[in-house]
Amino acid sequence: MINFSVDKNKNMPLYLQIFNQFKKYIENGSLPPGYKLPTIRVLAKDLGVNNITVINAYKLLEQNGYVDKRVGSGTYVSINIKPDDLSGEDIKALEHGQILLNKNMINFSSSSPNPELFPVDDFRIIIDKVLERDKGYAFEYQDTKGYMPLRKSVCEFIKKDGINTDYEDIQIISGGQQGIDVVSKVLINFGDCVFVESPTYSWAIVSFKSRGADIVDIPLMKDGVNIEELEKKLKIFKPKLIYTMPVFQNPTGISYSIEKIHKILELAYKYDTYIVEDDFSNELNFSDKRHLPMKAYDNFDRVIYIKSFSKIYMPGLRLGFIIAPKNLVNAFAEAKYASDLSTSGLMQRAFDVYLREGIWKRHIEKFKNIMKKRFYEMKNMLLDSKGHYQIELPDGGFYFWLTLKNDISAKNLYLRCIERNLSIVPGNMFFPNKIDDRHIRLSYASCEVEKIKSGVLILNEILKDIHNNEDNEYIPIV
Amino acid sequence: MINFSVDKNKNMPLYLQIFNQFKKYIENGSLPPGYKLPTIRVLAKDLGVNNITVINAYKLLEQNGYVDKRVGSGTYVSINIKPDDLSGEDIKALEHGQILLNKNMINFSSSSPNPELFPVDDFRIIIDKVLERDKGYAFEYQDTKGYMPLRKSVCEFIKKDGINTDYEDIQIISGGQQGIDVVSKVLINFGDCVFVESPTYSWAIVSFKSRGADIVDIPLMKDGVNIEELEKKLKIFKPKLIYTMPVFQNPTGISYSIEKIHKILELAYKYDTYIVEDDFSNELNFSDKRHLPMKAYDNFDRVIYIKSFSKIYMPGLRLGFIIAPKNLVNAFAEAKYASDLSTSGLMQRAFDVYLREGIWKRHIEKFKNIMKKRFYEMKNMLLDSKGHYQIELPDGGFYFWLTLKNDISAKNLYLRCIERNLSIVPGNMFFPNKIDDRHIRLSYASCEVEKIKSGVLILNEILKDIHNNEDNEYIPIV
Repeated sequence: MINFSVDKNKNMPLYLQIFNQFKKYIENGSLPPGYKLPTIRVLAKDLGVNNITVINAYKLLEQNGYVDKRVGSGTYVSINIKPDDLSGEDIKALEHGQILLNKNMINFSSSSPNPELFPVDDFRIIIDKVLERDKGYAFEYQDTKGYMPLRKSVCEFIKKDGINTDYEDIQIISGGQQGIDVVSKVLINFGDCVFVESPTYSWAIVSFKSRGADIVDIPLMKDGVNIEELEKKLKIFKPKLIYTMPVFQNPTGISYSIEKIHKILELAYKYDTYIVEDDFSNELNFSDKRHLPMKAYDNFDRVIYIKSFSKIYMPGLRLGFIIAPKNLVNAFAEAKYASDLSTSGLMQRAFDVYLREGIWKRHIEKFKNIMKKRFYEMKNMLLDSKGHYQIELPDGGFYFWLTLKNDISAKNLYLRCIERNLSIVPGNMFFPNKIDDRHIRLSYASCEVEKIKSGVLILNEILKDIHNNEDNEYIPIV
Repeated sequence: MINFSVDKNKNMPLYLQIFNQFKKYIENGSLPPGYKLPTIRVLAKDLGVNNITVINAYKLLEQNGYVDKRVGSGTYVSINIKPDDLSGEDIKALEHGQILLNKNMINFSSSSPNPELFPVDDFRIIIDKVLERDKGYAFEYQDTKGYMPLRKSVCEFIKKDGINTDYEDIQIISGGQQGIDVVSKVLINFGDCVFVESPTYSWAIVSFKSRGADIVDIPLMKDGVNIEELEKKLKIFKPKLIYTMPVFQNPTGISYSIEKIHKILELAYKYDTYIVEDDFSNELNFSDKRHLPMKAYDNFDRVIYIKSFSKIYMPGLRLGFIIAPKNLVNAFAEAKYASDLSTSGLMQRAFDVYLREGIWKRHIEKFKNIMKKRFYEMKNMLLDSKGHYQIELPDGGFYFWLTLKNDISAKNLYLRCIERNLSIVPGNMFFPNKIDDRHIRLSYASCEVEKIKSGVLILNEILKDIHNNEDNEYIPIV
């Protein structure tokens, strides 16, 4: 039998504690669809709380679609809930947010550029050179913090983004997701609280939850999170970290204003928490505005900067780095060691040559030109079509975030797009509670410029058709 | 202020619960050296337990070197305790158990073969072929479970060890340590119990503890763990998993008898727990006895088999695999995704060619011959010298485990060896409580045959000298 409990010494409101426990057990299938929840009186007595506390918890569960009230009978786990029992295909699809995608489709869903754009010829030559030079030593265990020459060349490389750091503060990682995992291992223990932007990248949340964290979301506005809301919640929850993507955010594409960057840094200092900055695409700035990483303004040493090389160079490098606040450097190294001992020496040595000899600059220039053409094609097509969605235009990155109008359901739209061989991402994937039916994310990372036009035309046709036929019934996709 | 608590509903004795909490806070530096512990009466009252419970906890802390009693004054955190504040060098050294090692030393401490033995020429050719064949696709994100052709060739490869499995049950990982991390993410939550062999590999314990596990150690005998002790503790603690290295164990080199393998499998089934088998060197069998992995006998589907390619092929591949019980396959894939999305596609594709074309067989044959010469050289040298240690001869692997006689201190011996440019590993590294002064581990993985003779001669000279001079004072190394 499942035990529920509340801790009155905890900073979290009691109804939220109860909500979170039910949510967890419903999501992991311990409380199956159709399960009858205890009556309000019984649970309130069991937990030693007021009836109203349980009522509030049940109301929140209902609002979030976890339970249904049946009049005169009680409260039941919603039969629309599918427990987290993921098949292999699902897992693969989850990368794109459980999105259907195949080779014949127009691909507006992938975050990752198509492999034809990877600098693979350069790396073929460099890898061979490194193996000639270093032989077996390229395949030895590396220093857990990373191959020293790479850490030094990373320090040079990152100056382009206004960041001055010491190689001693650099921790090499096997890609951005491992960065999130390593940071979670160090900062999060069972019952700790973590703040995320809403919407946000869902696999960061999986990592935080896996450490037993409670997630609190802060609404995102067009220039960054809502600062008043942030400060209000900082006072209540005392989070271990605030997870953010300040430049060309996933999924919204928005970038923080300088004012908000300074404000959030001050708040992190004031409330003694860390900011975890996830930067995967700041290079793709197509505007005249400067968008530096938050780390560039970090005078308080509160920003843990995670840089991924996957989206701009190649995912298969499995390479990135963390710039750590001084007091966390050694803890990150230990967590990295416990995760996978060290990152591939061959890839580290190859990427060091790639940075050191400036070869990356050629790639970025070429890559940015291609992405810029795609960006403007999609932007112009979206602006050209009127009516069924609203859009905040980003200054760069990979994403357009559309807010649907006229009560059109994003999930319905997603299914209709599949029928027409167009792959998009419905917005619910990016909300911590997975509840949203008003947004879609479009990406051009993997879509050649010729196909962008036809993709948007198809999207608009479908929207027009849905609107005319008032075909807006809710279709659950969990 | 730190809060201590006990849970009377927990299966763990109260004094052990108290011991564990102090141990944790002392190790992580929250209770610094010289800190005065609460008096017995005060703490007993605070916790609502008998005085004798606190007395027993403090006694255990004292026996384990965590605290010192000062007559008439109280109990203090030992000033010999160094909190877990690890510098970069320490981290690197921790791979060898915080052991001093430099290039001029005779290396009896490394677990990893010297890079001159790596099949790097083969891989240089294969990598180039793969890049020619697959181009950018070798650098794409891979299926989280692993590159399908590799999973299939792994199924063929592992038949040599008597294991028949389906590629659907294979999870590719970035090395053995990641295997431990992924398994921990799925099976261990805060407060769960994990069984380990005593002695064992220390970074497995770090992984388990990082998930909030309580560690219970089961003494190892010359044919596997003590089965009576195991069953007794299974009844009390209901562990989530039993972590074991059944073939050529690290650090002892022992292998389980067939009888014990069958017995432990039955017990895992009976008490509904999993066995996590860590296999990094079963290929190095120099005897006539057959030593198959435990997984080969696993009729109950209770064994999670982790295979590392680091020690027998090359650490820098960052490659290995898990064979998962059917019901855990998808959970492992999700944990892998949350850890680092997927393992390097280039290395997976290269290793697939390496297995598929049978190139690995040539390497194993050559590698085994070299290791066999080193093994017999060290074995004969150790047998030849008489007196100061006892030794259980292993049938293969990388290690000899020496039990020191005549009250000789392993830590003292370790320091004396350093003076003579000989690097060995003192046994305390391998005990969950880090308390041991009677054992040393010798490895020949990285030591050429000519140097083994002089290394053992130096060791024996030092032992003789220590014995004659009764130079056995205890020197703390934490």
